[in-house]
Amino acid sequence: MMHISDLDTPAILIDVDVMERNVRGLAEYCREHALHLRPHTKTHKIPELAQMQLRCGAVGITVAKVGEAEAMADGGIQDILIVYPLLGPRKLDRLAALARRARVTAAIDSFEVASCLSSLARRCGVPIGVRVEFDTGFGRCGLPIETSSVDTARAIRDLPGLEWRGLNVYPGHIMHSAAERPALIERENERLAKLLELADAAGLDRTVVSGGNTPAAYESHRFTGVTEIRPGTYIFNDKNTVCAEAATYDDCAFTVLTRVVSRSVPGKAIVDAGSKTLSGDLLLSGDRHGYGHVLGYDDVVIEDLSEEHGHLNVRQAERQPCLGELIRIVPNHVCPCINLHDRVYGVRNEEVVEEWVVAARGKVQ
Amino acid sequence: MMHISDLDTPAILIDVDVMERNVRGLAEYCREHALHLRPHTKTHKIPELAQMQLRCGAVGITVAKVGEAEAMADGGIQDILIVYPLLGPRKLDRLAALARRARVTAAIDSFEVASCLSSLARRCGVPIGVRVEFDTGFGRCGLPIETSSVDTARAIRDLPGLEWRGLNVYPGHIMHSAAERPALIERENERLAKLLELADAAGLDRTVVSGGNTPAAYESHRFTGVTEIRPGTYIFNDKNTVCAEAATYDDCAFTVLTRVVSRSVPGKAIVDAGSKTLSGDLLLSGDRHGYGHVLGYDDVVIEDLSEEHGHLNVRQAERQPCLGELIRIVPNHVCPCINLHDRVYGVRNEEVVEEWVVAARGKVQ
Repeated sequence: MMHISDLDTPAILIDVDVMERNVRGLAEYCREHALHLRPHTKTHKIPELAQMQLRCGAVGITVAKVGEAEAMADGGIQDILIVYPLLGPRKLDRLAALARRARVTAAIDSFEVASCLSSLARRCGVPIGVRVEFDTGFGRCGLPIETSSVDTARAIRDLPGLEWRGLNVYPGHIMHSAAERPALIERENERLAKLLELADAAGLDRTVVSGGNTPAAYESHRFTGVTEIRPGTYIFNDKNTVCAEAATYDDCAFTVLTRVVSRSVPGKAIVDAGSKTLSGDLLLSGDRHGYGHVLGYDDVVIEDLSEEHGHLNVRQAERQPCLGELIRIVPNHVCPCINLHDRVYGVRNEEVVEEWVVAARGKVQ
Repeated sequence: MMHISDLDTPAILIDVDVMERNVRGLAEYCREHALHLRPHTKTHKIPELAQMQLRCGAVGITVAKVGEAEAMADGGIQDILIVYPLLGPRKLDRLAALARRARVTAAIDSFEVASCLSSLARRCGVPIGVRVEFDTGFGRCGLPIETSSVDTARAIRDLPGLEWRGLNVYPGHIMHSAAERPALIERENERLAKLLELADAAGLDRTVVSGGNTPAAYESHRFTGVTEIRPGTYIFNDKNTVCAEAATYDDCAFTVLTRVVSRSVPGKAIVDAGSKTLSGDLLLSGDRHGYGHVLGYDDVVIEDLSEEHGHLNVRQAERQPCLGELIRIVPNHVCPCINLHDRVYGVRNEEVVEEWVVAARGKVQ
């Protein structure tokens, strides 16, 4: 058995016990509330972990890119939702190949993309599942909630070669503190009610209404009409989740093992985890300051990142980190962080018990 | 011959003509001023491009990590400076293996690290070259410029198994606009003069004083005592370089080819290049706003990035980007951007003429 101190640094550690608890916990909640769980696997990009989520009761998985879907299909996953508008001839060719070996659904937000998928489905003789995406306030993708949009959705439904698989929303804007969530959910529900009303009037089947994210995961039953949720981060949690009061650091399964490599500059400790290891993602809440939480050093701030250097401000630190010391960091955002690593290590009580290849890493296309 | 529009998106394009002009231009400047050029290859992470820099007159290369050095040695590079404090048993074992097949120099800033390298050199019977790093104001690594530090440097020089290879500095703080640079260089020169005076008094050989960065690359001859420079970004340039008035967009060899995938939200165009493609690095100057420059759309701002989505604010845009349109973006910072990609494409006049594997991508250790 290898101890974590035998690993080269920096390295990604995943506390297997905490991860399993997170996965089982949300699966149980979903069972209680008769919600389908379709985890977004961009958070881990590891087919073995997706399989574990499925074993715990997930109905399928979510991915963002065709390349991620391919990696997951290679890992034996059969039911894959791609929540991304798929455009471009190369991508569509790959989608057709994928649809022959897995049940693929694409979440789309335009008649133009739907037409391309319809042509593809007819040309290749393989049906493509679609969900139509609506914008409930995040303002990224999704049709506006208005009559003309459900008309578009109906036109998409009626395109040959496509299989209607419901409605998609993404409440990415509901990521604030617990105290702020009820009001946000109330506003979200007004939009959802309006969407459902329009869908019903247009005769759109809404057996599946998919939404959900990690900060509001355990409040998903409060969202009007939502039947399925797609949280990703909940498997690991991160500083963003903690700051949204949706987890504590004890629920964070994912840490970056790093070493203090320089103490030459007064007031600073430099660790070998910079933006190339942690990602440069800012904290989503508060003053957006700092690049992660240093376990055991509550008074230390990761105040800046170079690519290979984490700049720890240790001026206020009661205990000073030593040169060579191993330190563990909970990153602000786990999803872009894992994307920077080819492999990660599963640990139990500081013993390395697993090594996983991040098979869907870097799948930008 | 393949046109760039045949590539799947997003994709990294490198304009080969512009890149070659950038490489030749700085090589020529260095010859004129009798400066050694040791490019930092973290910018491209591609051994073939390092070889091109060497063919144009570079004396060797610079890397940040042992893993990058290994990838470059695999690509036939013989003279490698690792500008990073190397600590930890696994890393040192790899360094020893590397030192047997390439001329390796480590830039270090502590007697502790030097002692580890000395032990390693003696144990493995392979000499390790060292440079001692001093902090001239960037405040990251480097010994302070004071008498006790040159005493440390002398003690390092005298450790068995180590070969003295000079002094290292990094003027990373000199990255502002052209107008601000003279005053910054003047202050830098005061520190350099003090360092050289102390080194001379201590009898430290300073045949090699290595410094340099991209924003001040063509002013390197103004830095007191500097004999070698290690710029990285100059090979491609990026929005940071342009904002530092050290290049124009015509000098930017590196663009991200991306496609407009959604126009459903009013005032926005969503492209398929988010932080997983561009990196989340903020602009280093001005208001730090925006995530790159959209070629041909001066009035469009990349105002936000999700992992897979670039949020283009097109409210002020005279010409509106269409769904499906291909767009090219100059990123804020090329170095973390290329680290997100497994391969990049060399282009001339929109024809794809090369494909390079980013062999040193993701080498965090």
